[in-house]
Amino acid sequence: MSQPNAAVTDPRAHGVMKGFPPAADKLIQADDNSAWRFPGIRWAFSHERELNPTANVRRGSGAASILAYALRDDIDDLSFTCMDGRALTWRQSLDVNYTDGIVVLHRGAVIYETYLGALQPELPHLAMSVTKSFVGLLAAMLAEEGKLDPNAPVTQYVPELAASAYGDASVRQVMDMTIGVKYTEDYTDRSAEIFDYTLAIGLVTRPADYAGPKSIFEFLQGLKKQGQHGEAFAYKTCNTEVLAWIVQRVANTPIAQLVSERIWQKLGAEEDAYFIVDGTGSAMCGGGLNLTLRDMARFGEMMRCDGAANGHQIAPAKVVADIRNGADRDHFAKAKYSTLQGWSYRDQWWVAHDNLGSFTARGIHGQVIWVAPAAELVIARFGSHHVAANANGPLDHVSLPAYRALAEHVMRS
Amino acid sequence: MSQPNAAVTDPRAHGVMKGFPPAADKLIQADDNSAWRFPGIRWAFSHERELNPTANVRRGSGAASILAYALRDDIDDLSFTCMDGRALTWRQSLDVNYTDGIVVLHRGAVIYETYLGALQPELPHLAMSVTKSFVGLLAAMLAEEGKLDPNAPVTQYVPELAASAYGDASVRQVMDMTIGVKYTEDYTDRSAEIFDYTLAIGLVTRPADYAGPKSIFEFLQGLKKQGQHGEAFAYKTCNTEVLAWIVQRVANTPIAQLVSERIWQKLGAEEDAYFIVDGTGSAMCGGGLNLTLRDMARFGEMMRCDGAANGHQIAPAKVVADIRNGADRDHFAKAKYSTLQGWSYRDQWWVAHDNLGSFTARGIHGQVIWVAPAAELVIARFGSHHVAANANGPLDHVSLPAYRALAEHVMRS
Repeated sequence: MSQPNAAVTDPRAHGVMKGFPPAADKLIQADDNSAWRFPGIRWAFSHERELNPTANVRRGSGAASILAYALRDDIDDLSFTCMDGRALTWRQSLDVNYTDGIVVLHRGAVIYETYLGALQPELPHLAMSVTKSFVGLLAAMLAEEGKLDPNAPVTQYVPELAASAYGDASVRQVMDMTIGVKYTEDYTDRSAEIFDYTLAIGLVTRPADYAGPKSIFEFLQGLKKQGQHGEAFAYKTCNTEVLAWIVQRVANTPIAQLVSERIWQKLGAEEDAYFIVDGTGSAMCGGGLNLTLRDMARFGEMMRCDGAANGHQIAPAKVVADIRNGADRDHFAKAKYSTLQGWSYRDQWWVAHDNLGSFTARGIHGQVIWVAPAAELVIARFGSHHVAANANGPLDHVSLPAYRALAEHVMRS
Repeated sequence: MSQPNAAVTDPRAHGVMKGFPPAADKLIQADDNSAWRFPGIRWAFSHERELNPTANVRRGSGAASILAYALRDDIDDLSFTCMDGRALTWRQSLDVNYTDGIVVLHRGAVIYETYLGALQPELPHLAMSVTKSFVGLLAAMLAEEGKLDPNAPVTQYVPELAASAYGDASVRQVMDMTIGVKYTEDYTDRSAEIFDYTLAIGLVTRPADYAGPKSIFEFLQGLKKQGQHGEAFAYKTCNTEVLAWIVQRVANTPIAQLVSERIWQKLGAEEDAYFIVDGTGSAMCGGGLNLTLRDMARFGEMMRCDGAANGHQIAPAKVVADIRNGADRDHFAKAKYSTLQGWSYRDQWWVAHDNLGSFTARGIHGQVIWVAPAAELVIARFGSHHVAANANGPLDHVSLPAYRALAEHVMRS
């Protein structure tokens, strides 16, 4: 079956959710799960708060920090070769990857910015697993402050997890996702635990006879061990939720407030961000952050600048350096990601170990913060690709070569 | 049964929704409707977005307008006599009325400000029927611009209502709530249509076999005529929803965006506001607006200043003057509100026709904007009283004399 392309599924062009009320065939709802199906996600990812309970990440009442602009007109025609051999231009790649918006910073100034689909500059977009990198950074910051010991057992902070897969795991193993836990992230397998997770949160409609967990914390306590900890990288969203539980308990502060106080207010964000929350008000920390594209670019630029932004040292330089150094590449190789060979995963960030020093936060539908220090480049991108894929998928085949081509381009000229 | 007092039900003092997870007996949820029961509302009214899908009312990315401060220390001890004969001080009245926060402006400067219960300066609070006055003002603004004809039939704008109670009503009758419709607002009667309304929105948990309307627009189409239009004031939330349907269709803009563009961004609001939305993303315009106390005070001050604020003429002076002039007092008298004798209701605002020129926006749990032009006074208050009452109730018995006493006090000194 051929997939509907980006133009055909563009929610703005097709009047999705317009009118009072919207036409029945243009309605995207939580109730019928249309908000989680393609092409519904093309609208929903820019409107999650209209579909779910959320917790505010407040920016404060001051003016936003200034984003410098130095727009370039030589980017759309930039050509590159995809991993699958196709030749594309930069502009073509945006549609191929169902891009909702992209902002590129070079030396801190915006050189490229575009909004497609339902996204607008002022609308927060679902960041999905980019969320994880916020949680990992906060955990690393708390560790640097001596408030959290990465070498401690998880149960030192969350004794409620003693009987779960995490009963004999360390915080570091959770931070770097080397946990042996029965949890499948395969979005094509309807029996995968990722769906139990969405039911526990209440993201999707629960069956009438649903008797499973009704909160993230309850869900985590039921996870069973499978394999060993500390031996292999295995990308599982439940690990981030465990890390967030630890972080919130250590800081005695909800994650939305932590991101606000420690990052958003200091960064001079343009808009409030928000987390989707479960039925008990607990934030979905494995993928529930929503933020605007420009604010995500500001955050990426802070990571490029060794943790400094807007006159504040938001994260200690030492913490950022440790993330960029990455983790055990042999552990990572066991995940068999053909598109990410030689990479590692540190503190919930993906580290390429390449000549650009690139490291990245990644979401399964094309959400990304891609930082290439050697090119002084930051790419913030939102997407709503019809394929949900952590790696090995069509997204990486196009995006990773596109990002590299742009980095090499700005380094040349 | 004696009612638990404000101190006993103070959510902050008692650790409601604290911890990861909160203790079971401190948990407020949408699922079990604890968020709509007293004392759950004492926390929930300051956290509605964590419980419901919402639409953002964006303030923009600039700095908030400056609120001048000229705090006075002679207000707490101000004494007055309640309608029921009790003598109270101003400070005592705050607890008696389960106040969550109150800001008083005199000549545009803050002379009194306090936060109680779960409210904080940066937290939006559920405004309930104060929402109606925003909708009424927008309708009057559109009428003044010639985009909406108050004398036109409702069906000119919303033909979908032809077979409903509104089939032979005028827009003006809707604006001033002189509609004959079978709809009971009695919160003590579980068969009242107000509960069908909350089920249609999805505010409360629907029974498993629920087959009723699943959106506000669908609910409105089912309302039946009872009595005549244009003869008597009858306070019914459904009328505001009809007016909001008209307003949104005429402006071809969702109400959250209208409030943002026409009011919030111009006012220099400190925080984004938001509307609770139904399952189709449509805003709850009869009571779903949430905003911070200071921003509500800014809005009230704009109404005191003939529509001008922060360098903008937000509402035409003519529109504000028409609201202040009120409507037919004989129509109003038929509602038999013992606490509001001699009042009228214009464009979804309550007008006292008193020597202070006072007019007000009112919510059933003590939410209020009270403007007294003769005293150059604006009171913005949020509350979570255990009794839900439009009038005649314990709220008015205490609050209205308190507001008058304060007005007379600042006029004297």
